[in-house]
Amino acid sequence: MWSITRRRGAGPSALFVKVAGAITDDIRRGALQAGDRLPSTRTLADELAVNRNTVVAAYDELVAQGWVVSRGPGGTFVSEEMPERTVKRAPAPAPRAIAGRPGFELRTVAPPRAIVGSDSTPFQLSAGVPDTRLLPTAMLSRAYSRALRSRTGRAALDYTDACGAPRLRSAIAAMLRSSRGIPASAENILITRGSQMALDLASRLLLEPGSPVAVEELGYRPAWRAFEEAGARLVPVPLDAHGLVVDRIPPAPRCIYVTPHHQYPTAVLLSPARRIALMERARRDRIAILEDDYDHEFHFDGRPVPPLAAADPGRNVIYVGTLSKILAPGLRLGFVAAPPRVIEGMAALRAIADRQGDQVLEHAVAEVIEDGELQRHARKMRRAYEARRDALVTALRKELGGVLDFELPAGGITLWARVSPDVTLDTWCERALARGVAVATARDFALDGRARPFVRLAYARYSESELADAVRRLRDALPRGTTSTRLRG
Amino acid sequence: MWSITRRRGAGPSALFVKVAGAITDDIRRGALQAGDRLPSTRTLADELAVNRNTVVAAYDELVAQGWVVSRGPGGTFVSEEMPERTVKRAPAPAPRAIAGRPGFELRTVAPPRAIVGSDSTPFQLSAGVPDTRLLPTAMLSRAYSRALRSRTGRAALDYTDACGAPRLRSAIAAMLRSSRGIPASAENILITRGSQMALDLASRLLLEPGSPVAVEELGYRPAWRAFEEAGARLVPVPLDAHGLVVDRIPPAPRCIYVTPHHQYPTAVLLSPARRIALMERARRDRIAILEDDYDHEFHFDGRPVPPLAAADPGRNVIYVGTLSKILAPGLRLGFVAAPPRVIEGMAALRAIADRQGDQVLEHAVAEVIEDGELQRHARKMRRAYEARRDALVTALRKELGGVLDFELPAGGITLWARVSPDVTLDTWCERALARGVAVATARDFALDGRARPFVRLAYARYSESELADAVRRLRDALPRGTTSTRLRG
Repeated sequence: MWSITRRRGAGPSALFVKVAGAITDDIRRGALQAGDRLPSTRTLADELAVNRNTVVAAYDELVAQGWVVSRGPGGTFVSEEMPERTVKRAPAPAPRAIAGRPGFELRTVAPPRAIVGSDSTPFQLSAGVPDTRLLPTAMLSRAYSRALRSRTGRAALDYTDACGAPRLRSAIAAMLRSSRGIPASAENILITRGSQMALDLASRLLLEPGSPVAVEELGYRPAWRAFEEAGARLVPVPLDAHGLVVDRIPPAPRCIYVTPHHQYPTAVLLSPARRIALMERARRDRIAILEDDYDHEFHFDGRPVPPLAAADPGRNVIYVGTLSKILAPGLRLGFVAAPPRVIEGMAALRAIADRQGDQVLEHAVAEVIEDGELQRHARKMRRAYEARRDALVTALRKELGGVLDFELPAGGITLWARVSPDVTLDTWCERALARGVAVATARDFALDGRARPFVRLAYARYSESELADAVRRLRDALPRGTTSTRLRG
Repeated sequence: MWSITRRRGAGPSALFVKVAGAITDDIRRGALQAGDRLPSTRTLADELAVNRNTVVAAYDELVAQGWVVSRGPGGTFVSEEMPERTVKRAPAPAPRAIAGRPGFELRTVAPPRAIVGSDSTPFQLSAGVPDTRLLPTAMLSRAYSRALRSRTGRAALDYTDACGAPRLRSAIAAMLRSSRGIPASAENILITRGSQMALDLASRLLLEPGSPVAVEELGYRPAWRAFEEAGARLVPVPLDAHGLVVDRIPPAPRCIYVTPHHQYPTAVLLSPARRIALMERARRDRIAILEDDYDHEFHFDGRPVPPLAAADPGRNVIYVGTLSKILAPGLRLGFVAAPPRVIEGMAALRAIADRQGDQVLEHAVAEVIEDGELQRHARKMRRAYEARRDALVTALRKELGGVLDFELPAGGITLWARVSPDVTLDTWCERALARGVAVATARDFALDGRARPFVRLAYARYSESELADAVRRLRDALPRGTTSTRLRG
């Protein structure tokens, strides 16, 4: 380390940069032209009254940067091709764009598989996303500006706690206590980038290569990918009309991943008896339950059922929630409620993953929760989505009564329906997509990748009239020989 | 799956929730008081003309939620302690807060070690962070509101590409081409949450348990923690006045992590000869170079030296940059420039880690880059920080000339100085902290955890007069028997 202390090289290193800079400036101004010969290092050293090594270092640097080329004893010449000129000319994609194979080995990573449909598809009934037209942009914009201008906002511009803004942690805890019956206080809360980060951090904390993780046989692929990246072995657990078949959970899973409120994708509610059995099992065998309550707010029939985390004497539940569906998916705000030791472990991993959250956004959202604006907005959206669910159901019964068999979903923003055996599902979906309607089928959610005669229709994103239009297109897309009004078999 | 299709249970499941909801409403209204007995399931079933199982399910649910207690044949009674009332009473931390040990095993994770000093320390010369007082909050606020209100902003509220907003990817690529000589186009860019996420994603892509990673013997701990979480074995490489001692790099590292521009923490510039040797070594042995160019903009003497990525024919470099130091650490915006295959792999992992970035923020920042506002602001900050560097140097030479030995840093926002052997470093730092000045020493950055007689003084955050004050406090904090003006040994 001694050599660093004296930094004999450092003074010169600053100097050679100055010399190199002066030369590149000459080249830019045109004082030195492509092909010009630079003075010898000795000449320039004398001229500038600097050590010759400084000039040598400067020339080396210019060669490394491509400004000049060395012809050894022949001398040093300004390059025919300037790095910067080339850069300036560069359109996008630049001709000199970083292309080709990397110079090192790397594995291939499968992203979470995208569900059918694209932004250009008029009706993406495949995508369980909210209607961005209903999102409170003005409210958010005001809150964001206030947060950015306020003193807390200033503090928010600096580095801070990996757990999230204390103000937002308290606001979320209060919301969970008053509206979900979860006895959380601020130290039980970790703010994340949407639920996906919460699932990824929990995986990194709990799982090792080979850890068995019990998952619903039809479920949420992005969560599964997080488990797999942590090395987990996914074990499917069957579903029925009461949700997860708890007594089919394998012997010793490290973790059970469940969506008890509106099962993803079937929207089934986990029955009370099953909830009790699940909690008992987890407590007895010391299993972590990863509860993904992704759309708690959107429950239409009666009040939302409290989460598993609301009655968890054994402290087995890591509760994951999100504001993406109420505020905006693009804003990425989720949260975890868990015992302090779990929060500490996840926060340490979060500090390693991306250090901390967006403090300005967190202060802004804390404000809209404290003011009750978020809750008012959630109620408004729930009413809108309930009306859309009813419109979809009416249209389906009218146009596809003989083809689709379903129950009225008690909540959520999607409808799960069985397709009549008379319809070739894949053909129908292809024809529907050709008519501008993307529909997800059970295969899109199946761990075993097998087809099952079910479709999921996500309705939140479209108005009542848009949904009626989409359903007519679905009817018109039926394969020939199917009549949409045939009585149920 | 058949049972899901008929959803025999689903109709009732919706109904039992309604029944349970009606009862909890009665309890809330006080129509049912704590200790009251509920009607028998048969009576209520007849009353409501529903199936008795529906009422049984409703009562089970109320028991599970804690609203009522069952005394078996004795009947079902309203609980003495309501879930919600208890919740409403709950202060923060709530008496029923989720406390105690979790009901499952979990490992302990060490967060990146915090550097000495806290928000309450008047002078945190230990923290290499920008001065939030200089940050362009009004500019950001305007851009954010526009992004939120604009059509692109609307789109930005929805789910999108894990690589980041296309508009921001193009803007960053253009910036790298024109100001850093990196031949990047949009498909070479991944937008991340600050440089930390870029380092974590690169680790998850490249490293396996046991992978050797070459790191600077004094360096950036949060990066090391990301490598360790991916299972890497860290191998220190010595530093001297020319930066990383390239020919001391171990035989076959999977990856070399370097800060060539202003080495973190010594601020040494990697010499041209070393740069060439490093690139040749990486190309020959197919090693990935993870180049962390964390403060490219803050170079005072001459133009910034181009990054290694500017001359990388072998495609060995994964270039990591950040806007945290120009815009605001709390906003978390960083980026990666690399060959497309690397970007695809990191984007797939990013989709798993947190799905995507904050689209509104990304659109807002794209705008301030396109308008050149970001670059103008960076120039302004560079001038301010250069003046602060000079003020610090003047004060140090005056007050601590005999104690600290240093070269003028060519850039960066920190100064690295050797401490005279006459001073007991730890004692000095303790006394300084007691006087409100936190200073980082070499140990804070050492992979081997050993002490070395150096301090790092981060000056960006404080004005010229504040720095003069801090240096006087450092002088007053010198252990007795040290004279600050003694001539250099």
